[in-house]
Amino acid sequence: MIVVMERGASREKFEAVCRRIEELGYKTHPIFGVERTVIGCVGHEDKTPLESLETMPGVEAVVPILKPYKLVGRELKKEKTVVDVRGVAIGATDIVVMAGPCSIESEEQILEVARAVKAQGAQFLRGGAFKPRTSPYSFQGLRERGLSMMRAAADETGLRVVTELVSVADVDLICEYTDMIQIGARNAQNFALLQCAGRTNKPILLKRGMATTVEEYLMAAEYILSEGNYNLVLCERGIRTFENATRFTLDLSLIPVVRGLSHLPIVVDPSHGTGHWRYVASMALAAVAAGADGLIIEVHPDPAHASSDGPQSLKPTKFAELMQSLRRLAPAVDRNVP
Amino acid sequence: MIVVMERGASREKFEAVCRRIEELGYKTHPIFGVERTVIGCVGHEDKTPLESLETMPGVEAVVPILKPYKLVGRELKKEKTVVDVRGVAIGATDIVVMAGPCSIESEEQILEVARAVKAQGAQFLRGGAFKPRTSPYSFQGLRERGLSMMRAAADETGLRVVTELVSVADVDLICEYTDMIQIGARNAQNFALLQCAGRTNKPILLKRGMATTVEEYLMAAEYILSEGNYNLVLCERGIRTFENATRFTLDLSLIPVVRGLSHLPIVVDPSHGTGHWRYVASMALAAVAAGADGLIIEVHPDPAHASSDGPQSLKPTKFAELMQSLRRLAPAVDRNVP
Amino acid sequence: MIVVMERGASREKFEAVCRRIEELGYKTHPIFGVERTVIGCVGHEDKTPLESLETMPGVEAVVPILKPYKLVGRELKKEKTVVDVRGVAIGATDIVVMAGPCSIESEEQILEVARAVKAQGAQFLRGGAFKPRTSPYSFQGLRERGLSMMRAAADETGLRVVTELVSVADVDLICEYTDMIQIGARNAQNFALLQCAGRTNKPILLKRGMATTVEEYLMAAEYILSEGNYNLVLCERGIRTFENATRFTLDLSLIPVVRGLSHLPIVVDPSHGTGHWRYVASMALAAVAAGADGLIIEVHPDPAHASSDGPQSLKPTKFAELMQSLRRLAPAVDRNVP
Amino acid sequence: MIVVMERGASREKFEAVCRRIEELGYKTHPIFGVERTVIGCVGHEDKTPLESLETMPGVEAVVPILKPYKLVGRELKKEKTVVDVRGVAIGATDIVVMAGPCSIESEEQILEVARAVKAQGAQFLRGGAFKPRTSPYSFQGLRERGLSMMRAAADETGLRVVTELVSVADVDLICEYTDMIQIGARNAQNFALLQCAGRTNKPILLKRGMATTVEEYLMAAEYILSEGNYNLVLCERGIRTFENATRFTLDLSLIPVVRGLSHLPIVVDPSHGTGHWRYVASMALAAVAAGADGLIIEVHPDPAHASSDGPQSLKPTKFAELMQSLRRLAPAVDRNVP
Repeated sequence: MIVVMERGASREKFEAVCRRIEELGYKTHPIFGVERTVIGCVGHEDKTPLESLETMPGVEAVVPILKPYKLVGRELKKEKTVVDVRGVAIGATDIVVMAGPCSIESEEQILEVARAVKAQGAQFLRGGAFKPRTSPYSFQGLRERGLSMMRAAADETGLRVVTELVSVADVDLICEYTDMIQIGARNAQNFALLQCAGRTNKPILLKRGMATTVEEYLMAAEYILSEGNYNLVLCERGIRTFENATRFTLDLSLIPVVRGLSHLPIVVDPSHGTGHWRYVASMALAAVAAGADGLIIEVHPDPAHASSDGPQSLKPTKFAELMQSLRRLAPAVDRNVP
Repeated sequence: MIVVMERGASREKFEAVCRRIEELGYKTHPIFGVERTVIGCVGHEDKTPLESLETMPGVEAVVPILKPYKLVGRELKKEKTVVDVRGVAIGATDIVVMAGPCSIESEEQILEVARAVKAQGAQFLRGGAFKPRTSPYSFQGLRERGLSMMRAAADETGLRVVTELVSVADVDLICEYTDMIQIGARNAQNFALLQCAGRTNKPILLKRGMATTVEEYLMAAEYILSEGNYNLVLCERGIRTFENATRFTLDLSLIPVVRGLSHLPIVVDPSHGTGHWRYVASMALAAVAAGADGLIIEVHPDPAHASSDGPQSLKPTKFAELMQSLRRLAPAVDRNVP
Repeated sequence: MIVVMERGASREKFEAVCRRIEELGYKTHPIFGVERTVIGCVGHEDKTPLESLETMPGVEAVVPILKPYKLVGRELKKEKTVVDVRGVAIGATDIVVMAGPCSIESEEQILEVARAVKAQGAQFLRGGAFKPRTSPYSFQGLRERGLSMMRAAADETGLRVVTELVSVADVDLICEYTDMIQIGARNAQNFALLQCAGRTNKPILLKRGMATTVEEYLMAAEYILSEGNYNLVLCERGIRTFENATRFTLDLSLIPVVRGLSHLPIVVDPSHGTGHWRYVASMALAAVAAGADGLIIEVHPDPAHASSDGPQSLKPTKFAELMQSLRRLAPAVDRNVP
Repeated sequence: MIVVMERGASREKFEAVCRRIEELGYKTHPIFGVERTVIGCVGHEDKTPLESLETMPGVEAVVPILKPYKLVGRELKKEKTVVDVRGVAIGATDIVVMAGPCSIESEEQILEVARAVKAQGAQFLRGGAFKPRTSPYSFQGLRERGLSMMRAAADETGLRVVTELVSVADVDLICEYTDMIQIGARNAQNFALLQCAGRTNKPILLKRGMATTVEEYLMAAEYILSEGNYNLVLCERGIRTFENATRFTLDLSLIPVVRGLSHLPIVVDPSHGTGHWRYVASMALAAVAAGADGLIIEVHPDPAHASSDGPQSLKPTKFAELMQSLRRLAPAVDRNVP
């Protein structure tokens, strides 16, 4: 932390601030500049107690220097993490594709999608059984019945299952059926849920919240790792901005930014990130070019009849075209689509 | 819903869309314009199934007309709701002030704050026992011990208690100690938690999420009302924008906007909304001038030693000055500070 | 500036950075922390050359400490500036109200508005003769004919004139007719126009850009002062955020933030800031409660027939009600509506 | 336009609104829904006069249906535009790379960069002679001397020149030296400058403003085309969001969105879009994968000594690596790097 004193702050104020810093267990390193004095604070511990210095007389600002995360950071672990989900490696050379409907609607629907996406090279079946919907009057998911349908469809086709956990109360049920737990964007800072996920032995797919900064996002990941669960995959799914031509603004620069700060793998969700099927393929290709380790794509056999998120779902034929494009693109960035 | 066809969409596409609308149970009202055709869809039910029409050939856009909320809307209930919390009316003439520390730290601390804020006219003691902190390494709250300290301090001074519920698992414990349940900004779209709060018989204070639109915010409120709990108070606490001179951007225009759409009372949290004690008083006055029904203010006996959110906490003397200013201002907008 | 070295950066890299800092004319003050080294840079000059250190090997970040503005800052001039516009003082006790139509449409229209707003206590007539419209096909203003109509209406009623300058080419023409030059939000970082305005001897009303941070806004103001024109009034008019219930998000916290940083007066434009006449009165009252020195309000005799911005214009009767409310509120914050 | 009446609006109000619509020259098509009445307005003309209906009693909202742009739209011109700049085609198969320093600093600097980027396949030399800087105290450019140096360097190496026009007053001077005029992000809604550029016979590179929506951006382009200049290239350079890990958020989804709406070519500026040289290569590759027609990249022989924007400039060696990566990627999306 750097404490910046106001221009012309008195000697007394400066000394009171130094005393308080030392009282909190840090050493002070004042720099007397031409216009003002700044005080460097050096010490082992957590720097958050220093934030409150901002309320002391004569203090203009308290400027943090260190990153607040540890386990997720590159400084502690240089090599990139590869998360293994029952034999599928996320973060290695292969681009891992997770595909499926927004909601599980019926045995036929989920099996039809599972076959279609498997045939094109997807390795995960995604689908929601518990749906966090903006409206309490919208379809909320088939719950356990849905989980069981998805598990059966995945087993029959040889896919892994990823599905969302929306409440601590459902964790055992979800773990029974899924291979990987998704934490959705609206729960990205639901710390109780993050800790709960961190205590399971399932790999986690943690979506970025729609207004979560990179730093907050890595701290949310830190919640999971600090509970002992290191099998974590990050997922960019669009942030909220003023632009409404797309449902969210897909922030692909997250990929190189996180690469510089963290060892965790990153996948991208262009379906939620754009909100319109027309834009999904372009942004999926861009994500892989930018260095994403995988993609999560909504596919529905009949989007016009989908019970949720129809506008952003690809038909199986469009999904097949996308996979073909990815297969051409991946080698150009030293990746592979299996 | 209004379905907008692409310019020059063929007769066949137009008819296919009309058939699909009728199949979904709505009547079609086409308008043949100079440049394109639009189709009005009329019917009783939920309009969300119509959204998926956007994927049909020839459709340019699907434009919603009706508001998706019901119970929270002005159309169903014209008169403003007054929420009674053990004899304190929120939404009537009195400006209700909720004050206290970010975190409950000790018996002495909470009692000192309770006495100080009660003496100035506050009617609620606020304080966190379960703290949703960005970092897993920050102070997470005293939990039940904290709740018990706050209850005792409130009882001794004649204040009501409002505190945050962060997990469904804690609901019984929280209900035992509190008079009003707060749902925090990071859980504004944690639908499992909203439903849980909706099933209690405690009044709810629902904070706006940092990236929640007015429409989404009212839908979150609808989740609580639709469970049967009508004692809901909204709370503006700042939204996330590009500006970082303040921690968030306090969106006071929410007050007249919500007044036009909903019957629910609204309070404002200028402490979180600005993130700096220096700006709290100005924004508190502005909130009341804009029509807020109350305020929630962080007060700490010694902000420089606070275990969380020190920079935005007022000292008791500053809080007293603010209450004096509010007492002068309130009558000028036909309100009263008790 | 504080240069933050990467954790574990070698001695060679550290020394190369120090050499470069000294080469640029600054003194180095290294602090050797537990986790990394930071280097304070001390010197008289502009700190911008130091930014490029970020590209040197071993440098993690360059953190600015000093504010980049000078003339607009509180540090150089402690007392608040009062701008005099032909006898009307902006920044003193009186709340100065500037009112009028978005566009000047006819002699009758502008005179009718001038009389109506003067009768209620407005001191300025506002109105556009050169309109920066989003569409090239929208009404672009009456140009010189409009200016002449507005001048005549203002002279007849005893009001001052404020109108927008949109192009360097029009500056002489505008100066001939106006008492105060407005720089609009879309030109807040049109530096050529700012310099041009700074070279006139007219007081300037500088609107905040819709995506301009406080720091950038004060730097835009610095452009005008650095040309020798110190008669500058700032104006908050809403920033662009994800929320679209209002046209922009009126950021009233700018008022206390700027009060802390600058000596310049601030007025607020709730008409553009909300985009809907229904919200103008609440936000006008809130602005004054937050400490605004004045208001700029769109008033039109017949908003349903306005050639621009009808939805956000008040009818004269609504404007009269607002002025009455302001007259009640102002004394409660030690201000006065003349 | 669709006019939405309030629920329960009286027959009289409905009829008054219909009369007003007809008075404005449109035909009315009312749809009597279950909950409320909406009125379709049909007619040839500009729909903006209808916006003001929002102020009439009984009107809840006025919802636009048609896109406001014409000349830039896909509806009028189906095939993609190819802009020819002295023999270089932008919008065809080739990925056109524009590279050079932020500011022209000296004859040696600009010639060194020109040779380096030409050798790698760039086709344009970019560089600023008139710099719009946030601070009036920062380096403002070498002006005509700079233009002349850049022209010479481009001629010697066989590159085209693109440089920014910041003021109407400089247009003749700029046109004398440049092959393509750039309008910068801060002037994206400086309509006087847009019209001025539209009246030249030079191709235009129009950068998106940092808070400009897609619709506003296309309307800004419409200003240029409506003056008769059809040689326009769009440029995404990052929008302003809450995220500050990058200087701006590069919105690559603009590419597929604009492809659907307009025939104009689009290039991407990952240097300004991210603000850090470390992220430039990833985002350049992503841009081409998403369908960009070209790139504009800052290259400086010695970024640590650059007089502006050093942190985001690539060294010639890094630029060479990027070009090599692009050469591998482009064929995978049916493009070519010459």
